[in-house]
Amino acid sequence: MKFIKKLEKITAKNNSLLCVGLDTDINLIPKFLLKEANPMFAFNRELIDATKSLVCAYKLNSAFYEAQGKSGFETLKQTKDYIPSDIPVIIDAKRGDIGNSSKMYARTFFENFGFDGTTVNPYMGFDSVEPFLKYEDKCTFILCLTSNPGSSDFQTIKLCRPFRNQRLYEEVVRKVLVWNKKGNCGLVVGATKPEELKKIRKIAQDLPILIPGIGAQGGKIESVVKYGGNNIIINSSRSIIYASSDQDFTKKAEETATKLRDEINRYRKNI
Amino acid sequence: MKFIKKLEKITAKNNSLLCVGLDTDINLIPKFLLKEANPMFAFNRELIDATKSLVCAYKLNSAFYEAQGKSGFETLKQTKDYIPSDIPVIIDAKRGDIGNSSKMYARTFFENFGFDGTTVNPYMGFDSVEPFLKYEDKCTFILCLTSNPGSSDFQTIKLCRPFRNQRLYEEVVRKVLVWNKKGNCGLVVGATKPEELKKIRKIAQDLPILIPGIGAQGGKIESVVKYGGNNIIINSSRSIIYASSDQDFTKKAEETATKLRDEINRYRKNI
Repeated sequence: MKFIKKLEKITAKNNSLLCVGLDTDINLIPKFLLKEANPMFAFNRELIDATKSLVCAYKLNSAFYEAQGKSGFETLKQTKDYIPSDIPVIIDAKRGDIGNSSKMYARTFFENFGFDGTTVNPYMGFDSVEPFLKYEDKCTFILCLTSNPGSSDFQTIKLCRPFRNQRLYEEVVRKVLVWNKKGNCGLVVGATKPEELKKIRKIAQDLPILIPGIGAQGGKIESVVKYGGNNIIINSSRSIIYASSDQDFTKKAEETATKLRDEINRYRKNI
Repeated sequence: MKFIKKLEKITAKNNSLLCVGLDTDINLIPKFLLKEANPMFAFNRELIDATKSLVCAYKLNSAFYEAQGKSGFETLKQTKDYIPSDIPVIIDAKRGDIGNSSKMYARTFFENFGFDGTTVNPYMGFDSVEPFLKYEDKCTFILCLTSNPGSSDFQTIKLCRPFRNQRLYEEVVRKVLVWNKKGNCGLVVGATKPEELKKIRKIAQDLPILIPGIGAQGGKIESVVKYGGNNIIINSSRSIIYASSDQDFTKKAEETATKLRDEINRYRKNI
């Protein structure tokens, strides 16, 4: 099944546009879990059980798992396999290399792990993204305008003719629309940039947009939903998974996720 | 010891600007090695033995190791540890994420593995690169102008004022010079772009430049050495490590590496 179809189904079933980001940091998980054979997986498992009826996707941040070496690798696989198969799982890995190498990354994430989507950096251009696009049922989310301060270093620079004074991230959108021949591209746009999100949505009317940056990073839900329209995946990581560092962490995560989902839904139209 | 110092020492000792890229693909290594407990490591070990007096650095392409899962992770570590400690080892991983995540990647590569350098993607700007720069003795090579066809999608786009009609990759160079407060930044510039390399070297006179793209990708050694000047690391992967797929693969690798090193040296001044 194509990613977009899978996303639509679970969005309808769970009535949710919320993605929970499992940026699991071994140093931040509740201390009582450290006695478990694999504390990171135990943490993820509990969080999945607590939130799986509230989300449209999960996003796993590769950086946190790689930092744990071999056991992190194991945790990534276990976590992917534990998530109910009707919920899309995105690996946030931000890869991108010459074709020969990108092919390896695509194989790793889409075949070996079986992730449904991944994030890719556009800087190296089409042939660095193409190997990911060969997987028709997967979704490749290309970084467009990110939520961090450094996004103004290059992404928002104005381009000369023939680019009609548009900014670099807009040219990324336009190229992605050309690359989207199999309907399996998406974009990453930070929640901290509502006006730009509006502009991006105008250019890319149908692309799924992964939106990080609400919560800890300060993005506002109302404007994200208003300007992002349909086909958005709103990610929150830290505010949900570290809602408490005690025995009640699953209860608090569930409460926070429910609150976020409901807040998002308040601003949605046609539901 | 600072990366640049370590590089100077080994460059002098081995009289070499050649970096051997261990892009080890399990499907391309000599068949007789498949009976070894860890064929990828056995392949790397033999190649290191055959070339360690001919190189100024080794570069390991993370994509190929990640594709092998846990065992690839092990191979990466074993290979790093097997390389003589006076030879810098660069992990070609092209990461870059918001600060919180980049910190994890930096820790993984610089602390857990102990690599001497890594490649980083600039698209997300300063705070995505900064965590790598905290490691003063390591070198962070920022992608500037890559060797692949897709480099013309974004990297060579002309920018508007106040960027004086320069191209995106030139603005990357200028920003990297500002970021280089601790003298631990480098650039990645493809060998397939000699004229641009000349321009980049004029702006960034002292930065070490990692230059992939000779050999299989078609870059010319003469122009690379002529325009790159000092502080260049010229990488070749496939033409050396797959010089033969038979029992004589180490001999052929040594011959090819020697030929490349000597060809590079013919164009160097002051040696």
